[in-house]
Amino acid sequence: MSEWIIKNGLFVTMDETQPVIRGYLHVKGDSIAYIGEQEPQLTEGVEVIDGKGLVFMPGLINTHGHTPMTLLRGFADDMVLQTWLQDKIWPLEAKFDDQSARWGTSLAQLEMLKTGTTAFVDMYDRMDIIAGVVEQSGMRGVLTRGAIGFGSPEELDAKFKEAVDFARDWNGKADGRITTMLAPHAPYTCPPAFIERFVQASHDLNVPMHTHMSETAAEVEQNVRDYGARPVEHLDKLGMFARPTLLAHAVHLTDDEIELLAARGVGVSHNAASNLKLASGVARVPELLRAGVTVSLGTDGAASNNNLSLFDEIRLAGLIHKGVSGDPTAVPALEALKLGTIYGAKAIWQESSIGSLEVGKKADIIALDLNRPHYFPLTDIVSHLVYSGSGSDVRHVWIDGKQTVRNGECLTLDEERILHEAQAAFERLL
Amino acid sequence: MSEWIIKNGLFVTMDETQPVIRGYLHVKGDSIAYIGEQEPQLTEGVEVIDGKGLVFMPGLINTHGHTPMTLLRGFADDMVLQTWLQDKIWPLEAKFDDQSARWGTSLAQLEMLKTGTTAFVDMYDRMDIIAGVVEQSGMRGVLTRGAIGFGSPEELDAKFKEAVDFARDWNGKADGRITTMLAPHAPYTCPPAFIERFVQASHDLNVPMHTHMSETAAEVEQNVRDYGARPVEHLDKLGMFARPTLLAHAVHLTDDEIELLAARGVGVSHNAASNLKLASGVARVPELLRAGVTVSLGTDGAASNNNLSLFDEIRLAGLIHKGVSGDPTAVPALEALKLGTIYGAKAIWQESSIGSLEVGKKADIIALDLNRPHYFPLTDIVSHLVYSGSGSDVRHVWIDGKQTVRNGECLTLDEERILHEAQAAFERLL
Repeated sequence: MSEWIIKNGLFVTMDETQPVIRGYLHVKGDSIAYIGEQEPQLTEGVEVIDGKGLVFMPGLINTHGHTPMTLLRGFADDMVLQTWLQDKIWPLEAKFDDQSARWGTSLAQLEMLKTGTTAFVDMYDRMDIIAGVVEQSGMRGVLTRGAIGFGSPEELDAKFKEAVDFARDWNGKADGRITTMLAPHAPYTCPPAFIERFVQASHDLNVPMHTHMSETAAEVEQNVRDYGARPVEHLDKLGMFARPTLLAHAVHLTDDEIELLAARGVGVSHNAASNLKLASGVARVPELLRAGVTVSLGTDGAASNNNLSLFDEIRLAGLIHKGVSGDPTAVPALEALKLGTIYGAKAIWQESSIGSLEVGKKADIIALDLNRPHYFPLTDIVSHLVYSGSGSDVRHVWIDGKQTVRNGECLTLDEERILHEAQAAFERLL
Repeated sequence: MSEWIIKNGLFVTMDETQPVIRGYLHVKGDSIAYIGEQEPQLTEGVEVIDGKGLVFMPGLINTHGHTPMTLLRGFADDMVLQTWLQDKIWPLEAKFDDQSARWGTSLAQLEMLKTGTTAFVDMYDRMDIIAGVVEQSGMRGVLTRGAIGFGSPEELDAKFKEAVDFARDWNGKADGRITTMLAPHAPYTCPPAFIERFVQASHDLNVPMHTHMSETAAEVEQNVRDYGARPVEHLDKLGMFARPTLLAHAVHLTDDEIELLAARGVGVSHNAASNLKLASGVARVPELLRAGVTVSLGTDGAASNNNLSLFDEIRLAGLIHKGVSGDPTAVPALEALKLGTIYGAKAIWQESSIGSLEVGKKADIIALDLNRPHYFPLTDIVSHLVYSGSGSDVRHVWIDGKQTVRNGECLTLDEERILHEAQAAFERLL
């Protein structure tokens, strides 16, 4: 069993009882064996990492994305959501092959790792390829074959089977780093009966549900026209919220809908940059948090963000809800950091094992370089991480106690090759 | 005369006629002698920089800030503006001495240089110290001794004299890199007669005006109560807009006020992050741009941002106005980049000499490292710089043709010493 220790560490733990600790963190195998001010007794030969000039925190958790879409970064911007999807994104996605998926997800996982994300949710197709890259990258992946409910009955059957097979076959793989969900794409792209089949499968396989919901005002209106109910009530009637569910976006919500999500224990992935860029609006995050809904952060696909650095989402979440609500105390710094860490862990039902630096939890740890002008003076480290920090400050990353990034270099993925292959894969689509 | 050339360059010029150029850029002395696809004839011994893997663009222009306040970064966050100023910021600022100003502005100029800002507006006191650091850093500074109109007549006289002396004595210094303005702090902190004295001095010295205006809804209401007019009309009546004027914030504007600012040729420094963080609101940037007002970007002081990377402001300006207006075509990528470059140059009345890469303009150039995951695939470079890029991608900076940052290291300022001294100066304030 591998064993190592950090000394001279400054730890932002996300543990309520001791949010900031200066001292030691001891890893045995894949878990945190000790964190605190006292130097632990060590067997000889244990690797010692000097934490001077660094700040350590839990790895970030990105709760919504579509990693192969990273191949379309910058391909089409500044357009209306439906036009962007129908005229630009979907036609190019239709040409995606295994190589597009492989190099798109490799590029995404490389970027996420280097900017401090250790766990991510992914909804796409060709998920076996994505899962294969997760095995290699060392990341924690919560993966789901998303299914758009357009097509012939045979096509829908095939998508459903592929989604169910993936969810069953890959759950718990890669030493438990891979978990799975079931994901009908959205109420406006899936007939009710198709959604119900996924809900039933979620019961059968005992895996959670994930879907896009109420991203735009237009799709909410459409839902009312088509089904006589807003999306929350609609999905609730289809039985989805009887299952553990994570909703992406949830921008347009009434007070009653927020209350129902809280009552059902449904989590929300807040995709601030994507919602701004596509002009979908600003989710009611302060109200969701007040109601007790688990809110976490997602980048969405790189085509609508356009980067995958969760630090950018944390900063945005810390800024925008103040400005839009008129309340400068909304989403304070510590809460913004929780959105990207411990609340993210809750959102993917893994809060008992990740999301904070605590004894017994997995050693999913990132270290940022503090010797940079924007961290000076060293006043409030949580404030600095949220309002001033950036993903490019990340120096080291460990997942399950294994180092995946060292001095800014990814150890598990071949960066030079990925940049080259991603470029070539994109050019083949044109 | 020094002479050097970039070959294999990818240039984002901000020149309407040829926005992106691949080829050569030739610098003679402090200016751009050639930019284009053809290799220029060179005398022997001219330094050649290989631009492979880099993207070059004009240096960024930060049109509002208070550099010594960088010393208060992270000292107080998540508070109401007036409480934050009165209970936290002003009491600590009252203890500022020459050393606080020196190390605060050094830290700020270091951070700005390393993140690609080559010119900045600064409003504070002890401006001779700030000007001295500008001489050393090599930056372009538009400096003004801001004057808050509280105090005895003698105190106001002293502030006024200091401001006027500074504006006269330093204008054009540091080989022309320093220009000056006159800056009554704000309509709500300066009696009308005090503002009028500055307007007269602005005529006398032929330097422009700068002030904070309509940052919060409360100060607009106060202005109406105190003077029977909203701030735009109030300042117009005091003669300010007969002078070249740059307004910071300008968040709360009516249609009529926007029209008047356009008619008077008044520029606006949009401080998106600061306005969000202090919950002041979201400035009406799309409407200002449509009306023909020159809009530029400012970080404001680091205590309300909390970093000085203008790339963060560019991205925010590209995102937030889409989300808030509901129009995904608002502030498209190229417009967002102009806010931080050529419009910034216009805002400080230097568009004939900086803000774009064009023959005859000063060689204020930055180079960013493209070999990073978030710039792949290489699709639309302008989109990447705005939506995906970051100040930490900056590798090289030149101002007036002289290199100030090389491979991410600042050549003109001593980074290690500044971080140390800034920390010590902050601790002395406590």
